Amino acid sequence: MTTTLTPEILSALEQQAVEVPSWAYGNSGTRFKVFTTAGTPRDPFEKIADAAQVHRHTGLAPVVALHIPWDRVDDYAALRDFASEQGVAIGTINSNTFQDDDYKFGALTHEDDRIRRKAIDHHLECIDVMDRTGSRDLKIWLAEGSNYPGQSDLRARQDRLQDSLQTIYARLSDEQRLVLEYKFFEPAFYHTDVPDWGTSYAQVAALGDRAMVCLDTGHHAPGTNIEFIVMQLLRLGKLGSFDFNSRFYADDDLIVGAADPFQLFRILVEVIRGGGLNHPDVTFMLDQCHNVEAKIPGQIRSVLNVQEMTARALLLDGEALAAARSDNDVLAANEIFMDAFYTDVRPALAAWRESRGLPADPMRAYARSGYQQRIEADRVGGTQASWGA
Amino acid sequence: MTTTLTPEILSALEQQAVEVPSWAYGNSGTRFKVFTTAGTPRDPFEKIADAAQVHRHTGLAPVVALHIPWDRVDDYAALRDFASEQGVAIGTINSNTFQDDDYKFGALTHEDDRIRRKAIDHHLECIDVMDRTGSRDLKIWLAEGSNYPGQSDLRARQDRLQDSLQTIYARLSDEQRLVLEYKFFEPAFYHTDVPDWGTSYAQVAALGDRAMVCLDTGHHAPGTNIEFIVMQLLRLGKLGSFDFNSRFYADDDLIVGAADPFQLFRILVEVIRGGGLNHPDVTFMLDQCHNVEAKIPGQIRSVLNVQEMTARALLLDGEALAAARSDNDVLAANEIFMDAFYTDVRPALAAWRESRGLPADPMRAYARSGYQQRIEADRVGGTQASWGA
Amino acid sequence: MTTTLTPEILSALEQQAVEVPSWAYGNSGTRFKVFTTAGTPRDPFEKIADAAQVHRHTGLAPVVALHIPWDRVDDYAALRDFASEQGVAIGTINSNTFQDDDYKFGALTHEDDRIRRKAIDHHLECIDVMDRTGSRDLKIWLAEGSNYPGQSDLRARQDRLQDSLQTIYARLSDEQRLVLEYKFFEPAFYHTDVPDWGTSYAQVAALGDRAMVCLDTGHHAPGTNIEFIVMQLLRLGKLGSFDFNSRFYADDDLIVGAADPFQLFRILVEVIRGGGLNHPDVTFMLDQCHNVEAKIPGQIRSVLNVQEMTARALLLDGEALAAARSDNDVLAANEIFMDAFYTDVRPALAAWRESRGLPADPMRAYARSGYQQRIEADRVGGTQASWGA
Amino acid sequence: MTTTLTPEILSALEQQAVEVPSWAYGNSGTRFKVFTTAGTPRDPFEKIADAAQVHRHTGLAPVVALHIPWDRVDDYAALRDFASEQGVAIGTINSNTFQDDDYKFGALTHEDDRIRRKAIDHHLECIDVMDRTGSRDLKIWLAEGSNYPGQSDLRARQDRLQDSLQTIYARLSDEQRLVLEYKFFEPAFYHTDVPDWGTSYAQVAALGDRAMVCLDTGHHAPGTNIEFIVMQLLRLGKLGSFDFNSRFYADDDLIVGAADPFQLFRILVEVIRGGGLNHPDVTFMLDQCHNVEAKIPGQIRSVLNVQEMTARALLLDGEALAAARSDNDVLAANEIFMDAFYTDVRPALAAWRESRGLPADPMRAYARSGYQQRIEADRVGGTQASWGA
Repeated sequence: MTTTLTPEILSALEQQAVEVPSWAYGNSGTRFKVFTTAGTPRDPFEKIADAAQVHRHTGLAPVVALHIPWDRVDDYAALRDFASEQGVAIGTINSNTFQDDDYKFGALTHEDDRIRRKAIDHHLECIDVMDRTGSRDLKIWLAEGSNYPGQSDLRARQDRLQDSLQTIYARLSDEQRLVLEYKFFEPAFYHTDVPDWGTSYAQVAALGDRAMVCLDTGHHAPGTNIEFIVMQLLRLGKLGSFDFNSRFYADDDLIVGAADPFQLFRILVEVIRGGGLNHPDVTFMLDQCHNVEAKIPGQIRSVLNVQEMTARALLLDGEALAAARSDNDVLAANEIFMDAFYTDVRPALAAWRESRGLPADPMRAYARSGYQQRIEADRVGGTQASWGA
Repeated sequence: MTTTLTPEILSALEQQAVEVPSWAYGNSGTRFKVFTTAGTPRDPFEKIADAAQVHRHTGLAPVVALHIPWDRVDDYAALRDFASEQGVAIGTINSNTFQDDDYKFGALTHEDDRIRRKAIDHHLECIDVMDRTGSRDLKIWLAEGSNYPGQSDLRARQDRLQDSLQTIYARLSDEQRLVLEYKFFEPAFYHTDVPDWGTSYAQVAALGDRAMVCLDTGHHAPGTNIEFIVMQLLRLGKLGSFDFNSRFYADDDLIVGAADPFQLFRILVEVIRGGGLNHPDVTFMLDQCHNVEAKIPGQIRSVLNVQEMTARALLLDGEALAAARSDNDVLAANEIFMDAFYTDVRPALAAWRESRGLPADPMRAYARSGYQQRIEADRVGGTQASWGA
Repeated sequence: MTTTLTPEILSALEQQAVEVPSWAYGNSGTRFKVFTTAGTPRDPFEKIADAAQVHRHTGLAPVVALHIPWDRVDDYAALRDFASEQGVAIGTINSNTFQDDDYKFGALTHEDDRIRRKAIDHHLECIDVMDRTGSRDLKIWLAEGSNYPGQSDLRARQDRLQDSLQTIYARLSDEQRLVLEYKFFEPAFYHTDVPDWGTSYAQVAALGDRAMVCLDTGHHAPGTNIEFIVMQLLRLGKLGSFDFNSRFYADDDLIVGAADPFQLFRILVEVIRGGGLNHPDVTFMLDQCHNVEAKIPGQIRSVLNVQEMTARALLLDGEALAAARSDNDVLAANEIFMDAFYTDVRPALAAWRESRGLPADPMRAYARSGYQQRIEADRVGGTQASWGA
Repeated sequence: MTTTLTPEILSALEQQAVEVPSWAYGNSGTRFKVFTTAGTPRDPFEKIADAAQVHRHTGLAPVVALHIPWDRVDDYAALRDFASEQGVAIGTINSNTFQDDDYKFGALTHEDDRIRRKAIDHHLECIDVMDRTGSRDLKIWLAEGSNYPGQSDLRARQDRLQDSLQTIYARLSDEQRLVLEYKFFEPAFYHTDVPDWGTSYAQVAALGDRAMVCLDTGHHAPGTNIEFIVMQLLRLGKLGSFDFNSRFYADDDLIVGAADPFQLFRILVEVIRGGGLNHPDVTFMLDQCHNVEAKIPGQIRSVLNVQEMTARALLLDGEALAAARSDNDVLAANEIFMDAFYTDVRPALAAWRESRGLPADPMRAYARSGYQQRIEADRVGGTQASWGA
């Protein structure tokens, strides 16, 4: 039985784009060890070159997100032009207020006005970068919190956060947006200043229309119904972007769909049902790192996972489902739902990919391309990129 | 070393009142078994009589919450007068849309307008009861959701919920409020229509000023920082009430403070810091049941736990804490915090209780009162109250 | 692309048998409400008749597990003969020491020797039933524990449990087995006497070779790697049976594979790798209940889920996987693993089913059979079976 | 009301000793950032000097655990003598097979015999160190596992692990022990080779009498009843040591008792009830790190927390508790239990400390001692110790 992907489905898939993070191409690890690999980029240009490979073999990843200061360069116009030559564009700018000694006890929430101002200024610098790279979105992951009860004034920090965000938001142009990520825990262990979607929503709702929530799929308590949050944020008009990844227990930036593929399916069903697929409001981005697996192939696998699962979600027979629901026929509704999930879309996608001049099997195509051997031979010396630099 | 409770602390404790739930005096259990006990009330009058014992021995529980239909009576004025004679008042009215066969697939969210209207009408009946009992708050715990992916349209249910709540809210008088409870899971197992504080907040914010969030301390994912949510809801002006209880893993309505006393301390610290203690906006209520322990003593222990922990939280030295925080002295701040928690306030509270004509040891006083023996002898025949009736 | 199931795979699938629980055909629910449905059995004979339908349409469910006292009858030989006429056999006997008032504070662990002896005697009665029905396995789910710290002596209970089990084990014939289930929580909320596989293992290892562990897939903390436990118990020679079901957050007896199909796949991969598939040591059983969905179709769906996922697990290319692992090629190994999972085995299974005289689509075949209409018409009056009786 | 600590309690407290980890005095952090602090030791001698301060002010920490290779020195006899001069001894030797590039895919479980042999040899080296330092215990935390389903052969790794441990165990002298730690997750994210107490128990039971389990209080799934495991391991005679620390959600090495003091109390109650307090079989050790708080005071606070909670646990009135349990008086039993927990033992401990020539307030005494200022002034230049070296 061959699955047929309808023209409507193929058209939707054709529009799909997934931003890849520049930091996925650098080394990463755990607090215990960062393993290094041959061929790892030494600078943002090499990261973009690697990211372009992902797009070349999949047609799915035309945009690369940057992280400041990890991707700081002297000439952002040159970086933008380089990306363009490689066939990709520069996307979301991610700020970083967690690696300076000043930020040990907070940044945008810090009690000390000097440090708080420094953190705000860092975001203004990020907006400068956005101006020069043509990026639309400033993404803020607030790695702030405390480790011990009593250590911090939760309420005062929340108020200072709002004040800091107001200042940053005011600096954005009319075409730019601020997206605020939430995270259940880590790197702070007792309290986190933006721990849940409700807090992110309350903070951005107080800013204005161009402030949105970023939903990282790995940033929830076990058992959380994430697709419900997707639905709710779309309903409230505040879902600004996804950070796709997966995890079994703690945040670990595993490949999207690797830990619980059915959860990814349910999330994409809600994205489609809520009008978020290929909608300008909702950026699809990966936020992953590849501690033990190969990096470029890891990214190729990731965007393919998103594409394949989107195809399955698009196969869901909405009319039949609505009818089963109206009958309160739980088993029929579930069967219709699972039927889409269990359909093997991979052969049809491979054929369609080929019809568009892309490799049927991007993983094999990359392996055969010789690119990996080339960078392993060429990138000798220098300092491999990692979270530290 | 004798702990001294300052006049300010004693004054705050003197104002403290905890609503007790009528259903705590009836039988309850798990899906596997409801064990019965001698002396269990057979009707709302007997429940109120039992609740009055809790107040008599503690001075802490002057209000009894009712649950409709479990506490339906022909003459609510008579019930109110009876309560008054017993020295207590009738408080929050809790609705119930989870025990009628019609509600198998939803109530305020149901796709079928007839059933949804029935559920709305039930709430209007509850408001009628409020009018007659003088209750201020209508509390809605939405036991709705679905068990299987695909079974329900999450988004449509959310919209219907808002529509239903609008109708109910419109019926309230200017002095009455609606409080919407959220719950992480149960009795639905896949999705719950109001699973988190963010959803409850978004729903009540769309209603108006007299719609608030109810925070049940047992209704969160493991690892959730509940005191953070307390802080946030107070900050947003939307914390309407507490349902106090505790749990180790799943919702089990254990005695407040029994599972994690330090968590209760942290919650009360945030209540005080956010101005929520003895504030008319924030009702303190128990939502517990006593499956294996004695019921009236179980309630006495519960209100005492709230009182003792409030006393500890009031002992927190805010000035010293602010200084340690400003110094970023994590250990000093934590020590000041823990010092309040570890202080044994029980002897001072016992003495203060006696000074007000209350028993030093309410548990022993109740045991000696003969009340338990009396109700066990008197309440023979009839049907013991439980969640079913 | 049509999936081909090899003769080896089909042979393995042909041997597969899943025990169904008699209680799945009765009513069940949560502590809040048990919804009833038309056609529900009134006695064990009707339950067996229903279970036989599952086997008739799937060829997968030739054995029915009983629960004592819920399935107590005067004449077990008659029940066995009736089952035989219906084309099924009687399987595991499940004991119940959680619904008698005497067991409020324990049964096989109770401090009071009288009650403990009563609980032991109940198990001896279960072995009598086994003798008469020809059952091999006695399954003990220990619903015992405590709700509050301090309530019980954890250690003494553990010792008494071993003593009780020794007495029960001594009564088994050489062909009979004892399987001890573990459960993370519920119905006790603070401590459970057999909360994890380690405890069950330590208890049964002290009994002897015919005492084994029962792994209920829904009885673990969130984030637990269940397939690891499957591997370990097979390695230790102590995996006696599975209770299949699924859950999102708490134990809720959802249809196996419904919450996390990929987890079921991983479990079955380990079963096959460890030699547990179609091995006499390892009984496959469902332990589910159907609170909101139709019961007989719910069971049909469940056994089909086990069959389909077993087929996927059998498709795993072990040689290719071993090679990728030896190369430490994480992505290749994972892709080989996922390839089996994502293969759509349903069409091939439908064709194979038809080739054996079974319906291609058992769900539709049951719906068309008229059985449901017949039992709804016939089973009027009497008391519907549920956990209570 | 002054708490009186009986002579029996004081005698038990006098014998109490807590091993401190050398790595607590070095820098540590998260995968995002390691913040540094002035005065941090540069070598194992300076770590021991710092550890000795903890003992000097508390009388509680006479032993320092080492970590190899972090604490490798040329002359272990010199290190031992230095420790002795400082008033402390060298304790548990902790191995490390997670920071060499060879161990990326396993160490004691690795498929490649060369790497597995290297990991075994590292442990033999550790035993050499034990011989020279007079240490009794070799502690193995197995940081091994995999990140993606399919990546590894769970069963083969388990068998190789047993084989590796056999080789290591065979090298121990009759006075030496091997303790095997388990950990729920991290640094591997999909599977961990020793994830639970059952696996550690099965592995060490197969080794022999001098192989024991190490229970790290932070290494369990949320909701796990840790004191139950303490009870079970003591019952099985296999509790070899504690790694004390605490965590809110994930493993984060917070100060013991900081996250859930009541849990620490319950654990210590089971230690005492099971005969594990001050028993040579059961080593009390801290395994913590101090990311944002001061290190030496962080350790002082930690050992005091253990002491204070032990005192509370020793206050538990066992006779009264047994009587309440026999009566099935849940509330009385819980009240007796909580009474010990809520008793403020700090003033009595301070007085007792002074009577023994120790500071009443070790935190203040350390602050006033000038030691911190001295090391901050002296330890300039060199490389601060951290997990990396």
